[in-house]
Amino acid sequence: MRLPVPLSGVVPPLCTPLDAAGEVDTRSLARLVEHVLAAGASAVFTLGTSGEAAFLSDAQRHTALAAVVEAVQGRVPVLAGAIDMTTARVLDRARAAAALGADAVVATAPFYAATHPAETADHFRRLCKGAGVPVIGYDIPSAVHSKLGAATVLALAEDGTLAGLKDSSGDLGALRRLLVALRRRGLDRFAVLTGSELAVDAALLAGAHGVVPGLGNVDPAGYVRLYEHTRAGRWTEAAAEQDRLAALFDLVDAGDPGEMSGASSALGGFKAALHALGVIACPATAAPMRPLPDSAVREVRRVLAESGLA
Amino acid sequence: MRLPVPLSGVVPPLCTPLDAAGEVDTRSLARLVEHVLAAGASAVFTLGTSGEAAFLSDAQRHTALAAVVEAVQGRVPVLAGAIDMTTARVLDRARAAAALGADAVVATAPFYAATHPAETADHFRRLCKGAGVPVIGYDIPSAVHSKLGAATVLALAEDGTLAGLKDSSGDLGALRRLLVALRRRGLDRFAVLTGSELAVDAALLAGAHGVVPGLGNVDPAGYVRLYEHTRAGRWTEAAAEQDRLAALFDLVDAGDPGEMSGASSALGGFKAALHALGVIACPATAAPMRPLPDSAVREVRRVLAESGLA
Amino acid sequence: MRLPVPLSGVVPPLCTPLDAAGEVDTRSLARLVEHVLAAGASAVFTLGTSGEAAFLSDAQRHTALAAVVEAVQGRVPVLAGAIDMTTARVLDRARAAAALGADAVVATAPFYAATHPAETADHFRRLCKGAGVPVIGYDIPSAVHSKLGAATVLALAEDGTLAGLKDSSGDLGALRRLLVALRRRGLDRFAVLTGSELAVDAALLAGAHGVVPGLGNVDPAGYVRLYEHTRAGRWTEAAAEQDRLAALFDLVDAGDPGEMSGASSALGGFKAALHALGVIACPATAAPMRPLPDSAVREVRRVLAESGLA
Amino acid sequence: MRLPVPLSGVVPPLCTPLDAAGEVDTRSLARLVEHVLAAGASAVFTLGTSGEAAFLSDAQRHTALAAVVEAVQGRVPVLAGAIDMTTARVLDRARAAAALGADAVVATAPFYAATHPAETADHFRRLCKGAGVPVIGYDIPSAVHSKLGAATVLALAEDGTLAGLKDSSGDLGALRRLLVALRRRGLDRFAVLTGSELAVDAALLAGAHGVVPGLGNVDPAGYVRLYEHTRAGRWTEAAAEQDRLAALFDLVDAGDPGEMSGASSALGGFKAALHALGVIACPATAAPMRPLPDSAVREVRRVLAESGLA
Repeated sequence: MRLPVPLSGVVPPLCTPLDAAGEVDTRSLARLVEHVLAAGASAVFTLGTSGEAAFLSDAQRHTALAAVVEAVQGRVPVLAGAIDMTTARVLDRARAAAALGADAVVATAPFYAATHPAETADHFRRLCKGAGVPVIGYDIPSAVHSKLGAATVLALAEDGTLAGLKDSSGDLGALRRLLVALRRRGLDRFAVLTGSELAVDAALLAGAHGVVPGLGNVDPAGYVRLYEHTRAGRWTEAAAEQDRLAALFDLVDAGDPGEMSGASSALGGFKAALHALGVIACPATAAPMRPLPDSAVREVRRVLAESGLA
Repeated sequence: MRLPVPLSGVVPPLCTPLDAAGEVDTRSLARLVEHVLAAGASAVFTLGTSGEAAFLSDAQRHTALAAVVEAVQGRVPVLAGAIDMTTARVLDRARAAAALGADAVVATAPFYAATHPAETADHFRRLCKGAGVPVIGYDIPSAVHSKLGAATVLALAEDGTLAGLKDSSGDLGALRRLLVALRRRGLDRFAVLTGSELAVDAALLAGAHGVVPGLGNVDPAGYVRLYEHTRAGRWTEAAAEQDRLAALFDLVDAGDPGEMSGASSALGGFKAALHALGVIACPATAAPMRPLPDSAVREVRRVLAESGLA
Repeated sequence: MRLPVPLSGVVPPLCTPLDAAGEVDTRSLARLVEHVLAAGASAVFTLGTSGEAAFLSDAQRHTALAAVVEAVQGRVPVLAGAIDMTTARVLDRARAAAALGADAVVATAPFYAATHPAETADHFRRLCKGAGVPVIGYDIPSAVHSKLGAATVLALAEDGTLAGLKDSSGDLGALRRLLVALRRRGLDRFAVLTGSELAVDAALLAGAHGVVPGLGNVDPAGYVRLYEHTRAGRWTEAAAEQDRLAALFDLVDAGDPGEMSGASSALGGFKAALHALGVIACPATAAPMRPLPDSAVREVRRVLAESGLA
Repeated sequence: MRLPVPLSGVVPPLCTPLDAAGEVDTRSLARLVEHVLAAGASAVFTLGTSGEAAFLSDAQRHTALAAVVEAVQGRVPVLAGAIDMTTARVLDRARAAAALGADAVVATAPFYAATHPAETADHFRRLCKGAGVPVIGYDIPSAVHSKLGAATVLALAEDGTLAGLKDSSGDLGALRRLLVALRRRGLDRFAVLTGSELAVDAALLAGAHGVVPGLGNVDPAGYVRLYEHTRAGRWTEAAAEQDRLAALFDLVDAGDPGEMSGASSALGGFKAALHALGVIACPATAAPMRPLPDSAVREVRRVLAESGLA
């Protein structure tokens, strides 16, 4: 289906449920799709950072994307991450995603090798030309170790290379300046989506169009309520909902940082919560992430209960 | 005077005007104090990063602080930066500031040497014991290369070591979680001030008490309007004012990054604007910062005019 | 063929020649293999950072590796990079490389997602179990943004998970401590190879077994002379040769950092030199790297001539 | 006394012994001076990173420098760190050091505020003009978060601004290129001193003139032996001595990184060793560093004994 112009609303970056053997559990994935669509998600984003894209083989990525496309049944647009190091590799991923039915692909700046802004712009222009579907830029410095500069994004918005931006930089000041600059140039068709879980009210107040929160796997209804409050100008209610979700976000810290990476704790926390809520059958994350110990799973359940979710 | 509990409102981090010889221009500094007090500042913060504290000798710092105390005449609290590398040195600065009449001191985590969180907490506890005035923590990872963790700040708020926090980390998500945690603990007396110029509406929506914006030297009235809008629940108007201020913030980019540091461009931009507005007599910044070339000064004036300030 | 225990000598990380259309030029690659074998290389390493592995599609990687295996004809071991983000993906690359005839694979710690040392160790243990050929660890913090700690490497050397280490960290102090610790444990079978171009005499003096220098594509004979000097205890002559190679290394700086990334300049410089020397037919690098402008190519030729190579 | 041109040999960066109250123990400092001079140190460097300069008040710095000048009695040159954030502040420290009898001052690039290379060069030129004694550049990115680029150092060597460089960057490749470039320009009067403890043989093989090793407080005789071996061309013996010193360096890791900063562990380790050797009266480090627990002190003693020192 065609991507709305601009894309807006709550777009959960879907977790990829795995079974105990580490393979994609497509049934749980279909349930997760229903979980977020029933809550009012306006689109879904699969194979992003929350979807463990970096950890899945190409075959597993294809399985997951095909399952999402089938589960969604055209009810909302399906965005697919095309996470790879540089242009030729991302193009292979993007074309595969388009062939499987993705309505748009989401791609980062090159990583592994450091890249000059002119090279990053060229990278996105080649993706746009070759992908066959709209391309959304993914600004995630914590993973790719460079920030998409405002000048680059504005140029790629202006010439139509990018249909939008998923901003996971955490830099709300830079996002504010970008939004002001986009409006000054009349670039209303360019979708700005925040990847934050914690500053969604703020980003929407600044003019962002939507939100792609990893925590939206666990509590999509909360993010939809938050979004609706902001559309109706109920900023105090929006902030209160955001506060509740900020407390719920504590579940990403259940893992001990002396024992596992932040990714293991956060993605493990999301999955433990989805498992506790009965959405997915198994809370496993992909190797080499560490599983959450029982004490951490209990902490996740405590946080869920405290936020009124279980 | 006693610090309000909690400190709130607009607290400009005063620039330190210099003359052509590089010495502190106390007359211009007094005019700058009037400029921000007339606009409704609730306190002033001298010898912070915007005040070029890192560039001033101890003698110059004393001159500047004494001039501010004299100009303020007790109308609002005077906060003074005690910017130095580690505990013993910061204590010397803090005691000198208290002796000169500062109502509170603002101090960072140790820098130059990397520090463990337990050491950072000990640092602040020693400052609290020895400074003689309230201590406000200054979270500025871009300068000190560590972030004040939420657990550390909460502990120092709970035991009364810190009277508040100036958050210049730019990490609104972390700020949100801190604010939620402070409220849960009933720590209403602890002041949270954002150092952002660009996400002030957002920080206040999240529950921050005030704002310490470098750009508030140039347009204190704009920040006071923004603050007042938020206190009255006029979030749309607040966001519009913030958008205008975000456009005005373009003046920090007038310098060419190939020719000078970001500090030279930003602090030079603030001072060129204050000079253009007739507040200060000379736009010089301290060595070894580069002066803005004429073309950049014209750009600053263009941005000012576009924002309706000159 | 079986990997020598420990692997030693000069192991050039082969560039991957491309034609004007961006496809792998297998004839030029075969000539490059002869260029380094004629000079006395003890093994070759294909699909590493110098081989633009991050920029090549899987199909291009396969073409390049197959061409190298065919050109080498079993005369020396062929090492192949298995550069990908995490365990499942690296395993796919490693198995493909083994199937194509690689004698060992070279793999980094996970990247894109930050990883805990325990996860990194588990990653390598899974690779060792599944790859079918020996695994060499690749410590390259500039690309993967974490450093392989000494404790991790020692554990993986001790239990036989890794056959060796390619150290491209640039941290000779850490390498020294690792070498001392390996010898104390009697781990003589574990090969330590420096990826440095500039401190090869130093690393060999410290006890490293070999060297994997990108610049060894251009001047393999120089690195073989340097290596032989060190084996014969001629340290002054080794240092003089290293000095000459350090001057030759200036060719990586021919590109303007305002116009292109360091990768474009360095890899473009290697390829421009190989083109000037008649080894490869076309100096193109992979998208989105920028080509060197004519002035930079002239600078590369000047540096070559000054070092007595052209 | 006049600084030798170029300065060479072993220049220990003296620890600053403190008593239990945290004040400078000038008697122990005098004993430390004898300890290193008896071993053959060619100069001493006080108030550097190993001297806890960042932790000492100005009064304590003055006490320490005066004590060193008095203890040295003109037998070797005394270098003094002038560690502060920017030009005006460093100049105050440098002039005070010169007045107290320092024969040269050692200064870093500006820190706290990020600085452009042109600003860094201007900084050193102002120091050179105003300090009254020769200035040695101190390249320590781990503390100041920028690296002195080769172009900057070459320019400052060529115009006589800097008398030398203390390179604590750990980047031996960059040091090699700098040394080659200095020799090409005939800049033989410019002293290059490595701050490494672990790659001293390597740096001297590359042409460095001397070494400023923190571990040289503990085992100055070892570093003098190492230096003498290299001067006599006994590279194998030099490497063996370096290996022994690398094992001794394990004492910096006695502290638990979960409990204290690296600075606490390393400086605490040096002082625990000096205390065990009877050189200083008390192993205390400055606040807010953590003291080593007894178990760590025992580990320091074990490492000392294993290296034949106690």
